[in-house]
Amino acid sequence: MSLLVVGTVAFDTVETPFGKAEHILGGAGTYIGLASSYLTRPINIVSVVGEDFPDKHIQRLKDHGVNTAGIEVVKGGKTFFWAGKYHTDLNSRDTLDTQLNVLADFNPVIPAEFMNCEYLMLGNLLPDVQRKVMAQLPNRPKLVVMDTMNFWMDNFWDSLMEGLKLTDVLTINDEEARQLSGEYSLSKAAKKILTMGPKYLVIKKGEHGALLFGEDKVFFAPALPLDEVFDPTGAGDSFAGGFIGHLARTGDISFENMKTALIYGSVMASFCVEQFGTERLVKLSVEEINSRIKRFVELSQFEIPLS
Amino acid sequence: MSLLVVGTVAFDTVETPFGKAEHILGGAGTYIGLASSYLTRPINIVSVVGEDFPDKHIQRLKDHGVNTAGIEVVKGGKTFFWAGKYHTDLNSRDTLDTQLNVLADFNPVIPAEFMNCEYLMLGNLLPDVQRKVMAQLPNRPKLVVMDTMNFWMDNFWDSLMEGLKLTDVLTINDEEARQLSGEYSLSKAAKKILTMGPKYLVIKKGEHGALLFGEDKVFFAPALPLDEVFDPTGAGDSFAGGFIGHLARTGDISFENMKTALIYGSVMASFCVEQFGTERLVKLSVEEINSRIKRFVELSQFEIPLS
Repeated sequence: MSLLVVGTVAFDTVETPFGKAEHILGGAGTYIGLASSYLTRPINIVSVVGEDFPDKHIQRLKDHGVNTAGIEVVKGGKTFFWAGKYHTDLNSRDTLDTQLNVLADFNPVIPAEFMNCEYLMLGNLLPDVQRKVMAQLPNRPKLVVMDTMNFWMDNFWDSLMEGLKLTDVLTINDEEARQLSGEYSLSKAAKKILTMGPKYLVIKKGEHGALLFGEDKVFFAPALPLDEVFDPTGAGDSFAGGFIGHLARTGDISFENMKTALIYGSVMASFCVEQFGTERLVKLSVEEINSRIKRFVELSQFEIPLS
Repeated sequence: MSLLVVGTVAFDTVETPFGKAEHILGGAGTYIGLASSYLTRPINIVSVVGEDFPDKHIQRLKDHGVNTAGIEVVKGGKTFFWAGKYHTDLNSRDTLDTQLNVLADFNPVIPAEFMNCEYLMLGNLLPDVQRKVMAQLPNRPKLVVMDTMNFWMDNFWDSLMEGLKLTDVLTINDEEARQLSGEYSLSKAAKKILTMGPKYLVIKKGEHGALLFGEDKVFFAPALPLDEVFDPTGAGDSFAGGFIGHLARTGDISFENMKTALIYGSVMASFCVEQFGTERLVKLSVEEINSRIKRFVELSQFEIPLS
């Protein structure tokens, strides 16, 4: 069923202990689009880039079946740029540069052909922009998934709260869940956040896996223990892409199916971190994905006889 | 099948954000004994205390079916004492005081009736003491599980290495696994540690669950997301008790059964942290344990159709 992705399409410069890659394809919308492309069709994306953005990057999304008609190209504008450097443990990073450029005035316009989306994935963006997207849709999508970050909590609290009321599933990391709720315990944090609007909450814990809360239930998807994490950039967005991609493909938004979606999210994130940027994500095969799903089954499934 | 536990029986003074408990029953041997007592019989313990150690604490172990004939009481001696204070997040703590007392000269003597143990759990102790235990046993147990810590890696490396060669399963936390192997990636750390002697490695990650490595396989058991963690003291030892308790009960040391044992370990640890010291662990019912096992099943089990 149709998936609409709204999120940044951007340039990243990334430095890790393993090397440096400059001005590579990045952005939440890019990672979400690529990761979901292995699971569902059609995928439409709404974003903005500058005139400096190369056609080959847009073509890469098209090659993955993503309809890029909603990517506005601003004449004379420069594309959003982020530069970051990861610490040795790859669990933390410093942002070295952020140039909003065309993102500063981004006013999302949903093409008519995208209007009847059933699944909406709002990548991490200014809460006002996320709400402008929702305001344009004639019908409420079957499922609205929103990602956000601490920066918006610090600076755009009220707008974020309004957006949360329109959201079905919120995906944030553990620190953001603590900040949003004021609770240290993730279990308590989830209870509080689920009173703010979302019916489901996904807490991403990076190498420690992800939790799904909702309907008074909780499910945990592990992260795959990897020999090398090459570049964590985009892992959270790849996770979101795998998550909503599975839901859109199956058209089933039950808690049971969201559990499976969490595993698909973890699978996509585990691929993402294996190489720089989108390098790994652009060349996956169905066999590789299924083989990794099996690794997650082996990693976490057990038989238990009760005494 | 018979389980022999070697580990400290001690006094703890614990301060958490929720309160302070002074001179309460503690020690690795205590937690291992209590946790395993819900799963298997007979359980024999070898340890040492001073004359200051109250009978009621020994009685508590006896009440749980633990044979305490191997607890040496040193005339005029003082019992091992540890005091610690947890930080607000409960994930880190400061050791405020450590008084080895009778532990400084602990020379474990295995009573004749304990000699034919099939399962041996070596709690965190000086590596020399752990090896003295193994040296006394006329037959190698079916399974030797060893716990250790960074302090012994820093100060008794060679003796620890000798002990590891005699060990089947090593249980350590993530930081200790990194220190022991010199590898940051836990997957790489495990590969290296499994060349040092142990055939299986359990890496305890506290609130982030536990990993089991061995036979070129990996399994992950989540930790239960709890509203309140009251006192983490003894969680790792309760985990070890649940783990070896299940293995001793079933007599099955296959990787498949170790997965289940890891879940029992996580269940026992989840109870342990709910109250101060051993308070929660001494009053469990079979119904409570089974009900919590079911929560772990709900938390981590899923159905996945491959595409």
